[in-house]
Amino acid sequence: MRLLVMNPNTTASMTAAIRATATAAAAPGTEILATEPLWGPESIEGHFEGYLSAAAVLDRLATLDTPFDALVMAGFGEPGREGAQELLDVPVLDITECAAQMAMLLGHAYGIVTTLDRSVPQIRDRLLTAGLLQRCAGVRGTGLGVLELEEDPERTVAVITETARAVVRGGAEVICLGCGGMAGLQERVAAELGVPVVDGVAAAVKFAEAVAGLGLTTSTGRSFASPRPKAIGSWPLSRHLAGVGSAVPTARSGKTSGI
Amino acid sequence: MRLLVMNPNTTASMTAAIRATATAAAAPGTEILATEPLWGPESIEGHFEGYLSAAAVLDRLATLDTPFDALVMAGFGEPGREGAQELLDVPVLDITECAAQMAMLLGHAYGIVTTLDRSVPQIRDRLLTAGLLQRCAGVRGTGLGVLELEEDPERTVAVITETARAVVRGGAEVICLGCGGMAGLQERVAAELGVPVVDGVAAAVKFAEAVAGLGLTTSTGRSFASPRPKAIGSWPLSRHLAGVGSAVPTARSGKTSGI
Amino acid sequence: MRLLVMNPNTTASMTAAIRATATAAAAPGTEILATEPLWGPESIEGHFEGYLSAAAVLDRLATLDTPFDALVMAGFGEPGREGAQELLDVPVLDITECAAQMAMLLGHAYGIVTTLDRSVPQIRDRLLTAGLLQRCAGVRGTGLGVLELEEDPERTVAVITETARAVVRGGAEVICLGCGGMAGLQERVAAELGVPVVDGVAAAVKFAEAVAGLGLTTSTGRSFASPRPKAIGSWPLSRHLAGVGSAVPTARSGKTSGI
Amino acid sequence: MRLLVMNPNTTASMTAAIRATATAAAAPGTEILATEPLWGPESIEGHFEGYLSAAAVLDRLATLDTPFDALVMAGFGEPGREGAQELLDVPVLDITECAAQMAMLLGHAYGIVTTLDRSVPQIRDRLLTAGLLQRCAGVRGTGLGVLELEEDPERTVAVITETARAVVRGGAEVICLGCGGMAGLQERVAAELGVPVVDGVAAAVKFAEAVAGLGLTTSTGRSFASPRPKAIGSWPLSRHLAGVGSAVPTARSGKTSGI
Amino acid sequence: MRLLVMNPNTTASMTAAIRATATAAAAPGTEILATEPLWGPESIEGHFEGYLSAAAVLDRLATLDTPFDALVMAGFGEPGREGAQELLDVPVLDITECAAQMAMLLGHAYGIVTTLDRSVPQIRDRLLTAGLLQRCAGVRGTGLGVLELEEDPERTVAVITETARAVVRGGAEVICLGCGGMAGLQERVAAELGVPVVDGVAAAVKFAEAVAGLGLTTSTGRSFASPRPKAIGSWPLSRHLAGVGSAVPTARSGKTSGI
Amino acid sequence: MRLLVMNPNTTASMTAAIRATATAAAAPGTEILATEPLWGPESIEGHFEGYLSAAAVLDRLATLDTPFDALVMAGFGEPGREGAQELLDVPVLDITECAAQMAMLLGHAYGIVTTLDRSVPQIRDRLLTAGLLQRCAGVRGTGLGVLELEEDPERTVAVITETARAVVRGGAEVICLGCGGMAGLQERVAAELGVPVVDGVAAAVKFAEAVAGLGLTTSTGRSFASPRPKAIGSWPLSRHLAGVGSAVPTARSGKTSGI
Repeated sequence: MRLLVMNPNTTASMTAAIRATATAAAAPGTEILATEPLWGPESIEGHFEGYLSAAAVLDRLATLDTPFDALVMAGFGEPGREGAQELLDVPVLDITECAAQMAMLLGHAYGIVTTLDRSVPQIRDRLLTAGLLQRCAGVRGTGLGVLELEEDPERTVAVITETARAVVRGGAEVICLGCGGMAGLQERVAAELGVPVVDGVAAAVKFAEAVAGLGLTTSTGRSFASPRPKAIGSWPLSRHLAGVGSAVPTARSGKTSGI
Repeated sequence: MRLLVMNPNTTASMTAAIRATATAAAAPGTEILATEPLWGPESIEGHFEGYLSAAAVLDRLATLDTPFDALVMAGFGEPGREGAQELLDVPVLDITECAAQMAMLLGHAYGIVTTLDRSVPQIRDRLLTAGLLQRCAGVRGTGLGVLELEEDPERTVAVITETARAVVRGGAEVICLGCGGMAGLQERVAAELGVPVVDGVAAAVKFAEAVAGLGLTTSTGRSFASPRPKAIGSWPLSRHLAGVGSAVPTARSGKTSGI
Repeated sequence: MRLLVMNPNTTASMTAAIRATATAAAAPGTEILATEPLWGPESIEGHFEGYLSAAAVLDRLATLDTPFDALVMAGFGEPGREGAQELLDVPVLDITECAAQMAMLLGHAYGIVTTLDRSVPQIRDRLLTAGLLQRCAGVRGTGLGVLELEEDPERTVAVITETARAVVRGGAEVICLGCGGMAGLQERVAAELGVPVVDGVAAAVKFAEAVAGLGLTTSTGRSFASPRPKAIGSWPLSRHLAGVGSAVPTARSGKTSGI
Repeated sequence: MRLLVMNPNTTASMTAAIRATATAAAAPGTEILATEPLWGPESIEGHFEGYLSAAAVLDRLATLDTPFDALVMAGFGEPGREGAQELLDVPVLDITECAAQMAMLLGHAYGIVTTLDRSVPQIRDRLLTAGLLQRCAGVRGTGLGVLELEEDPERTVAVITETARAVVRGGAEVICLGCGGMAGLQERVAAELGVPVVDGVAAAVKFAEAVAGLGLTTSTGRSFASPRPKAIGSWPLSRHLAGVGSAVPTARSGKTSGI
Repeated sequence: MRLLVMNPNTTASMTAAIRATATAAAAPGTEILATEPLWGPESIEGHFEGYLSAAAVLDRLATLDTPFDALVMAGFGEPGREGAQELLDVPVLDITECAAQMAMLLGHAYGIVTTLDRSVPQIRDRLLTAGLLQRCAGVRGTGLGVLELEEDPERTVAVITETARAVVRGGAEVICLGCGGMAGLQERVAAELGVPVVDGVAAAVKFAEAVAGLGLTTSTGRSFASPRPKAIGSWPLSRHLAGVGSAVPTARSGKTSGI
Repeated sequence: MRLLVMNPNTTASMTAAIRATATAAAAPGTEILATEPLWGPESIEGHFEGYLSAAAVLDRLATLDTPFDALVMAGFGEPGREGAQELLDVPVLDITECAAQMAMLLGHAYGIVTTLDRSVPQIRDRLLTAGLLQRCAGVRGTGLGVLELEEDPERTVAVITETARAVVRGGAEVICLGCGGMAGLQERVAAELGVPVVDGVAAAVKFAEAVAGLGLTTSTGRSFASPRPKAIGSWPLSRHLAGVGSAVPTARSGKTSGI
């Protein structure tokens, strides 16, 4: 089975970290591809960047010529998944939903530790539409920006742990790491906290194996039917973008860190 | 006061109809600008197109050199608004939220008549995150696609009215027209139905006048703070898109129907 | 357009303050009438007084001989609006609903600062039935009674601001002033707080202009159909009240502060 | 123990029927008083009449010189109870809340059969603020007005039963009679339906016995603290109403059917 | 009328305390029987013990040869009631539901003080399925285990009162004692707190009198129809349990504290 | 990895069918054990039988001497899981929660087809406490009892498909088979329906592989801490049950169909 893991931003070092976590989580026989968009923001810390990234991810998916069995979208709380579900005929999972679902299998209430406080309402809204908010005991920011997470891993673990403790005091019995850039830190945080810690990338890889392993895929019955045929100006965007389109004859371009 | 009304798709005839409705609703002293994105889908009938449109609208807003006092986003149930709220320092209203709010001022429960059945869950999710779903008695599709609405206005009014009747039987006391392309039909449908009919474009224009008239704008306190400074590849997109960027030295380009 | 703004209590100085705020908010061409009931409590700080006021307001409306295009009810969290909706054929707006709706246009979550703690559950219940509670991050009392608000405006602004800060820390991105008697203080509080502050009277005046400007009014389809013909003893009350009825041959009586 | 049962309207024959049902439900040692307001509507079929009745009931309570141990308010879905809770130091129960609570003790979901369809949203709102809506499977009107219920008892039972059947098909396992004027019909309807039928007057009498029997009363801790001292014009109303006040030196006036 | 009160655990001293509280609450003419299971845990402080107790209680009910008019189940937040509702043709009440319902009759929001913090989510889930969570302002543990409650009554009252104060600060206007083992302490805690305190055993006894007094019982229409005929291995368990079955020819066995 | 799949009833042919489905779903390297309780009901069609089964399953788990890496509980909508979570230090999954979660990964709303109508409220309550009800579009019974499912597989598939069609018309985009006894029919029903069909046993096996594969297990932080030490009469039951205890020196007894 081959899983494509999509880092929603253009920072290749983050793609590499996500790929490592996904690979560590994957079962024998699961191949992990990981990539990022050809354009768009280097990190996502709000709605504006999230919407740009959503289009950039869809563009990347539309121009990729590598087959895969399921897609894992590695942006926490970010938009775009339903678009990929319409575009692809393989299952599409995102790390927000999978982290929350796995956490709900492990405890009565769960909490989320994320990067900036400004992302908290966005994550709560994503959980709300995912139908998973009821058992969420809290979402809390560490104050660290996405790209700051990589700067000093010791500090990052310490800050995540301290933030998580407040969420546990609020009733969470399981903690989810609320940023793709936190992937790989779950074991160290869990050891400090004493409650299970779920990394969304790992959770989504396992759930993608589960869904694809049963031969299931997205329902085309209503919400996620294929797009209707119509004119879409400048689409796919990367084929029309100066300096991107011409440099990307195939998806295996050197400009992308993945695949 | 100058309001910018953004048709989310690239169909100029729809921009014209939306502009006409907005102008009819506007108070004396309110100037209506209307435009559409420079690229993207000709109509929006699902999540994939919605996410492309969201980025195209943000691109359009980032490159527009015309000042305005408030933005009205004329896509019903479609994503993107929160991105515009981060990007702009004037208030941003969308027709879904405004239609539902105005309907709630007029009756105990409201309903929505939209285009295709596949859009129903998307609209419900938009109402859910807007915090306005509780008093929604039903959302129902007419089976007419967005661009079909213009084809035979008599049929369109008849089908909307018939669909609305079912929603009224389900408890709605007010009906909202659930597509920017239905703008202008509210009076004829209301006359047939016997209950108030709210057009989202008209409602959003009036609420934009209300908010801007009081000198209020989007809170920058948390969710909608300005984007942080960072690298965004190929942004703004239209400046890098072959055949779009070069043809659009300013936002008043002849390729756009508006402004 | 002529709007009637109804102060729910009999304190004429409060009517005057509400009239001033409404007038400041009104568009050119909007005429503001303001009045209060002919009997009932001098201020409303609980359910008992709220129910008396509701009947007194309905009595006032039933005996008023001045035409108007929309009614704004200026009691925050107080009962009675649905009765006025049945009685009148013009739209009826209340400041609780309009403040919350306008706040939701400006931020992800809103909060309310009101007078006494005892009113908090009453306000929350009003938001609940209005279908607007979901995005309310908190309602909090200042400890100042309704009539105390006028006593020392500096202190009032300071106490409101301090209370609002706690609500903002709880997640509110916009603050609503939760008492008609706070009308006019929004700009000073906003300057202190750094987030938008919505005064319900101003919001309701603008929304009344919006609704009436589109020619819309309350649905008579179900909840708010006209009262059925029947015997109502001693109705309208003010025509039967000793010392009130005789003194009030018309609604333009000198005992009322308004109109 | 002495219970006061308050018919919210001025129709003495309805007071008599309510008194009979209450008396039949009461335990040995419970004395039932029943009365109605001195002014106001002859029946309540909407919000306007409900708000008038609320004030009329409070007026009646304020001027009554008979002691009692608990109050039962016999209007279904109607406003006013919280006012009485502030005014009195004995427990106050209403038939909506008591009928729903007792029904929830008897089955998983319950339904309500009421008079006119226009009252359905009002009843649902009352259940919503009472915190009892979650397990309500449906509220449905018979089409019979309040005063029509007495006209042809056979037809009334038949129409209630037929309406209740539809509610049972929708998932209700217990039916509540949703109008004080239906009191006494529960056994005949239950025999037809085959599921338990709860009459609110009977339920409220038993729950009043329960609460008062334990020596409990309304909390004065927050929502229902006593009204603060203040000027209330023309209060109590019946003392100032021409033809009412003078005719009612005490609450045992011949104009009232009860007590 | 004869009520059976079932202590869910095997501790006879707790059965005695529950019987005393129930007897004090009962009306003249109500006879109280109280008993406990023949096997199972000595106290219930979690789900595992709760599920064992549920089966033990059903076993006890299936083998009891004493008639009764209603069953009161005296475990707070514990499972099993729906099973008893299927098994018996008399009404079945539990103290969680009755305490919450009675509290809702007395104040706007209620709170619960229970034993261990680990039981809090279980109690909240029980309120959730009972449809009574909406107006719950908080559930909080004292840190005292079930059997510790009896050890030092002074300390127990002090700790309950202190815990209840925190719940009142969180908005509760009424407090429920959240453990059958707290029965009898309500008056002392109420005197300290200044808000009404509801003991579930007392509340359930009164509501059982109410329901049975009206001749009502559990609906057999859907959820709680009688069990279908089928093979059940080793049932009833107490007839097959070595040392229990042989020692319990009838339910009036000396091993049980009650009846 | 070794998974234990627990059929909640004593019917060995159903254990065999569940084992076959689980084995077909399992990854290479996953060993499936399947068993059933030593006593209790032959099928579960209500709360009474569910509670007996819960205790019987806990008894089976307490006396089993075979190690395993995760437990899958194969009863749909049935109680007991939280007890197993307290008892075991490996993860515990149940088919209701896993079916619903997997369905939510595949479509916007899901529905459930179960056996008897009387189980519908029980399943909805289980989804409610699992925090998964929000996106459930409907639960509907086929009218076939649990043991009837095996009688005529053609009829069973036809009736499930017809029932599922009604649920799809109500908005479900994915269907879950709502009984462990339906395991294995998912592909045939999906082929008829045209939307994805999730079997809970298969889903739970894959999710158990996912959770255990990441080395995660139930949080012991609050709800699911180990039971406290205490006296439990006659526990474990099977060691004291005549004819069961003596015949079951180890869990590999010939009386059980599994392991």
